[in-house]
Amino acid sequence: MTEYSGKFYEDLEIGMSHETYHTISEADIEAFAAVSGDRNPLHMDEEYAKTTIFKGRIAHGALTASYISGILGNDLPGPGAIFTDLSLQFKRPVRIGDDVTARAEVVEKQDKGSRVTLKCTCYVNGKAVVEGEAKVVAPRKK
Amino acid sequence: MTEYSGKFYEDLEIGMSHETYHTISEADIEAFAAVSGDRNPLHMDEEYAKTTIFKGRIAHGALTASYISGILGNDLPGPGAIFTDLSLQFKRPVRIGDDVTARAEVVEKQDKGSRVTLKCTCYVNGKAVVEGEAKVVAPRKK
Repeated sequence: MTEYSGKFYEDLEIGMSHETYHTISEADIEAFAAVSGDRNPLHMDEEYAKTTIFKGRIAHGALTASYISGILGNDLPGPGAIFTDLSLQFKRPVRIGDDVTARAEVVEKQDKGSRVTLKCTCYVNGKAVVEGEAKVVAPRKK
Repeated sequence: MTEYSGKFYEDLEIGMSHETYHTISEADIEAFAAVSGDRNPLHMDEEYAKTTIFKGRIAHGALTASYISGILGNDLPGPGAIFTDLSLQFKRPVRIGDDVTARAEVVEKQDKGSRVTLKCTCYVNGKAVVEGEAKVVAPRKK
């Protein structure tokens, strides 16, 4: 069986963090629209989006949020982590071409149930575009 | 310009709701993994997933959550809606082949800022798998 190298509950410490980097492309927005079914013209139709306060297409908030899922599932804790809670605020628009830094940091551990709370933030140009918190059950060492 | 037929803030009433239906396929999970980068073997590797409490692959929680984004962007309020807050609990696993009903219901309106709160639930076989709340800014009539 494939070996996976995530972190176990026992390895996690308050303050541990992980970052990933993503440049938002038109293809990313199209792919998220296909997966979610969300074809809000704010994301899909430049001509429509130009008439809004954003003056152009923006990425789905839930696309940016999905990068948080990526960190939790791949890196921190990583393989075997079970997502139980997600709470996010979408604070600023993310546009095609923006470089997004997604970041998660361990802020709380609860031995009962191996539960871990992570502060989650996505940044563009140093400003938070998404901010919130995720809770996971982390795998234990066998 | 393309015409879109979403609901305006003025049209929304407490208790209005919309449902969408999705059968989770392996391809959906693969597509979400590609978009988010989340390759947690709990979702991607049947052999690994069999060794966990779920006894087989489950869908990414954020995939199921993305159907909520679909309702808000397409239907309720629909085109022009701006996603500001999302808070979800992932309560039960969703498996390949499961029929998911995603549902959003208007529970609060706040005239200042045209803000709307929706209760969001995803069900499989009548049981809630995802439960929470979303907040959006709804478009106003010109």
